Amino acid sequence: VSSTAASTSLSLRGVFPPIPTPFDRAGEVDERVLASNLARWDGYDLAGYVVLGSNGEAVYLSQAEKVRVLQVARAAIPAGKLLIAGTGCESTRQTIELTRQAAEIGADAALVVTPHFFTVTPEGLVRHYAAVADASPLPVIVYNVPKFTHLDLDAATIARIAAHPNVVGLKDSGGNITKLGDTVRQAGAGFQVLAGSAGFFFAALALGAVGGVLALANIAPQACIDIYRLFRAGEWARAAELQRLMIPVNAAVTARYGVAGLKAAMDMLGYRGGPVRSPLLDLGADDRQALREILAAGGLLGEETP
Amino acid sequence: VSSTAASTSLSLRGVFPPIPTPFDRAGEVDERVLASNLARWDGYDLAGYVVLGSNGEAVYLSQAEKVRVLQVARAAIPAGKLLIAGTGCESTRQTIELTRQAAEIGADAALVVTPHFFTVTPEGLVRHYAAVADASPLPVIVYNVPKFTHLDLDAATIARIAAHPNVVGLKDSGGNITKLGDTVRQAGAGFQVLAGSAGFFFAALALGAVGGVLALANIAPQACIDIYRLFRAGEWARAAELQRLMIPVNAAVTARYGVAGLKAAMDMLGYRGGPVRSPLLDLGADDRQALREILAAGGLLGEETP
Amino acid sequence: VSSTAASTSLSLRGVFPPIPTPFDRAGEVDERVLASNLARWDGYDLAGYVVLGSNGEAVYLSQAEKVRVLQVARAAIPAGKLLIAGTGCESTRQTIELTRQAAEIGADAALVVTPHFFTVTPEGLVRHYAAVADASPLPVIVYNVPKFTHLDLDAATIARIAAHPNVVGLKDSGGNITKLGDTVRQAGAGFQVLAGSAGFFFAALALGAVGGVLALANIAPQACIDIYRLFRAGEWARAAELQRLMIPVNAAVTARYGVAGLKAAMDMLGYRGGPVRSPLLDLGADDRQALREILAAGGLLGEETP
Amino acid sequence: VSSTAASTSLSLRGVFPPIPTPFDRAGEVDERVLASNLARWDGYDLAGYVVLGSNGEAVYLSQAEKVRVLQVARAAIPAGKLLIAGTGCESTRQTIELTRQAAEIGADAALVVTPHFFTVTPEGLVRHYAAVADASPLPVIVYNVPKFTHLDLDAATIARIAAHPNVVGLKDSGGNITKLGDTVRQAGAGFQVLAGSAGFFFAALALGAVGGVLALANIAPQACIDIYRLFRAGEWARAAELQRLMIPVNAAVTARYGVAGLKAAMDMLGYRGGPVRSPLLDLGADDRQALREILAAGGLLGEETP
Repeated sequence: VSSTAASTSLSLRGVFPPIPTPFDRAGEVDERVLASNLARWDGYDLAGYVVLGSNGEAVYLSQAEKVRVLQVARAAIPAGKLLIAGTGCESTRQTIELTRQAAEIGADAALVVTPHFFTVTPEGLVRHYAAVADASPLPVIVYNVPKFTHLDLDAATIARIAAHPNVVGLKDSGGNITKLGDTVRQAGAGFQVLAGSAGFFFAALALGAVGGVLALANIAPQACIDIYRLFRAGEWARAAELQRLMIPVNAAVTARYGVAGLKAAMDMLGYRGGPVRSPLLDLGADDRQALREILAAGGLLGEETP
Repeated sequence: VSSTAASTSLSLRGVFPPIPTPFDRAGEVDERVLASNLARWDGYDLAGYVVLGSNGEAVYLSQAEKVRVLQVARAAIPAGKLLIAGTGCESTRQTIELTRQAAEIGADAALVVTPHFFTVTPEGLVRHYAAVADASPLPVIVYNVPKFTHLDLDAATIARIAAHPNVVGLKDSGGNITKLGDTVRQAGAGFQVLAGSAGFFFAALALGAVGGVLALANIAPQACIDIYRLFRAGEWARAAELQRLMIPVNAAVTARYGVAGLKAAMDMLGYRGGPVRSPLLDLGADDRQALREILAAGGLLGEETP
Repeated sequence: VSSTAASTSLSLRGVFPPIPTPFDRAGEVDERVLASNLARWDGYDLAGYVVLGSNGEAVYLSQAEKVRVLQVARAAIPAGKLLIAGTGCESTRQTIELTRQAAEIGADAALVVTPHFFTVTPEGLVRHYAAVADASPLPVIVYNVPKFTHLDLDAATIARIAAHPNVVGLKDSGGNITKLGDTVRQAGAGFQVLAGSAGFFFAALALGAVGGVLALANIAPQACIDIYRLFRAGEWARAAELQRLMIPVNAAVTARYGVAGLKAAMDMLGYRGGPVRSPLLDLGADDRQALREILAAGGLLGEETP
Repeated sequence: VSSTAASTSLSLRGVFPPIPTPFDRAGEVDERVLASNLARWDGYDLAGYVVLGSNGEAVYLSQAEKVRVLQVARAAIPAGKLLIAGTGCESTRQTIELTRQAAEIGADAALVVTPHFFTVTPEGLVRHYAAVADASPLPVIVYNVPKFTHLDLDAATIARIAAHPNVVGLKDSGGNITKLGDTVRQAGAGFQVLAGSAGFFFAALALGAVGGVLALANIAPQACIDIYRLFRAGEWARAAELQRLMIPVNAAVTARYGVAGLKAAMDMLGYRGGPVRSPLLDLGADDRQALREILAAGGLLGEETP
């Protein structure tokens, strides 16, 4: 009962960076850097943060590390901004357990990636999300990221999952804008769709998304916020123009170089990205130089201060 | 020389239906019906027609049939509207031959699908299009349709192909809106990108496309034209609203039921679709009923008259 | 009636090279070279030849060229060896027409690749093959080559197709040996399965295949024949040993370099391969050198004489 | 030093079932049933067991559960049979930690699945396995299972990984028998390849594999052992005949019904499979009946007693 009440009042409007998890030279979670990055992002008008998402290298963290990262993030994130915790695991019971821990720590919502090791049927997925949503004290956001999971939820299955009152939204990183529009329609009013990549942020907003979880917002928060604000202000043409400008930058820090590229870009832009965990590899010197040129071409070097 | 001059002045702005090829009960091309359908479409403000595209079942036509269909279409299409002829074949020499025939018949441009039986390298594709564009009396439009070809041209390769002065544009049916935006940027001013499906028509326009080759325009030309006009008039929010309404209709006549669905819808809407060629199968009674309901929900039944 | 009688008596046992189509420097079919290559292969104990298969660049030939290639091949192939003609086209009617032409020319069987541009349903495929088999004066062999068609017939669908009395076999190039074994079982006695690549020739024979259509047999016919003979003689361990030796050679002339690699290898081994047709590209100097080394390592250079 | 010595003396010859993890009705690991299943399998001449593999639903177990399952298995497995522990995790450090725990518990080897959430480069994979092999007190077996990981190691990358002296073998579940033969050749003498599915067990042995990790061995151990023994005895034709008989049974308990089918089959054959963990679903009544008929057709019902 209370969970439903909570969920219906949670707005996912706006821009959310899915923040990386910083590691020190010994490979341990660097809590101080995590807090300092959050303090820096706090100068922007972001709606909140996704912690322990794909870009957070959540699959490389132990359960204890996940809990600790959420605690540090909770302490660093001010009350007016959301903490969305990535709590999806392969099994339903693991997911429920971590979601409950996130709730105790004070997260505002749970982002639950689709299970993907085994090929789960649509019926299995619907039951999985229903069980998680039943047990979760937090509103649940479905996370569809076919690039990593090799599973692409269709609009009809999403609509079935969305029928649960404690499932409040979807982060869709697939980039199929037609499906995104159809999902908005089929899932109905009140279900909040978030673009999962800055590459199609404007298009998603135009087709009914309410916001975005954008890796680009880690390094270019103002540009992402501007796209959102221009859109909300009805200045769609200007929003689209800014969108086009950001596509190559976003491609570099997501598709081309992945988390290592995002962290390297943070290092170049006043944040602290630091190393990735193995088996990912840090960027080599040539890739760093290429990345630097892309950031410069996108107007980001030396300019991004709140 | 003249071809370059011609190409730079050819505008691809607006909406183009990729028209089906009608067959009679004996399975032969029905020239009379082809002409009558064109006459009906001519009541709308379409920019022109794609003849012998995927929806034209071009892969099921003999060379002689292709020539005849182009001749009939040329006779039926008024001077102010473009005839874009699908002339892409697997080999460079076949493509050049058909393109020259299309030029003799009076087509305005050639739509050249990527060769796809063998896995051709990017270098091979660049040389293929350069050879075709060199030999073609018509401006060349690249046609990327990964659903059928299982080949998805990336933006960098498209930009290389676009460097030829007689390659004037791209029809992209892939639906990756991020890549479409990047293609517009990388290919540069003057290169005209066309959305290849109504599902992402508005998004494509917002990211720099100049028009669309839309199967939906065969059965709902006015809705497609309205999206385009509202966009051009700066009324983007209204355009996006209409876009969202058309997504389920478009999905039914393209992704779900394919050419057979498109032809069945035409039969329901005052055009004459008729049978598909084997190995495609005509829609069964249940699918026809489901399609009828989708058309009704989309507001198309009984209303689509010019 | 007569077609059934014919089909039940046609044996597909043994090794069949899918021969390339030679082109002269002007890009035209080189009939003289085609005949001379066949004369050279005729020194080996091959069961016959596949003409107009994938390696024959059939998709790059006009209808007139296809007919002419079959005529030349028919004249050059002695009575005791089979001429299997690739006659599969995208449409059922095109396939029937070419199959009938092949029969008139004197082919012994028709190899019919799955249609693949549109996604045809299993029911559509069953009807397609039934219609072709009904109309064909020649026994029909189904051709499954997912690498090129992006369609992989499953064992159950093959069994449905095989129920037609004039469908006598399958060439499976997919390489899923488990499925191949299951196909042999499901299709039942009398249905003849052919391995579609030398990489899994021995394994296929062990699981019930009767022979192979092997690109490798164009350049290493004796090795392929030896694998077959050793297998038939019960000397499986020696057959497997030879199989292992041929895997890298086969990989080079099929997976790595494709038709261009096969033709280049022919040029190195006393046959005449010559150029491929565009958009395929001939091998560059570096690739030719790498290929030469692979052939040398496989013991083929300077040794392959009948 | 000692790890290298150990690894070179570890033989992976023979048949290994990848055992399921039994759960009780409350969803907890059922240690008693785990031990009783192992006692029953111990009546067969199996070479050992894979514990915590894919079929062990390892991705659904907590770290504590994994440790406990290994402890129970270690106590139940007699000294003469190997305990191969699945210890692969997404990160290098997690994998090392679990591998060390497995060594302390007394496992004989570590089976390390490829990391797969992010797309790791070949270089990253080589470094990952080198780091694990450096740190592991146990010989390391690489585990390639593209059906679940959507990553298919190629022979060249496997050979690079195999160069480490503490990497002793590969379980390949991909089913590409050509690649398996090439892997045997490229990885060189001493590197032991295991078939990862009973569907291609015989073919893999013929191409140089030394044994198999076969889900089918959980329910039909004698048939799997017989294929192996007949092969080793040089009776390849009889081995292949038995192989063909087992393909449909194997398909049912792996490809068609997955872990739930394997557990249901165990329940039918005197073992105790029990329920799967969510989001997997137990078989419904219809599927159980179909499975029962497949087992009967394969001659397994009522006959499989040691």
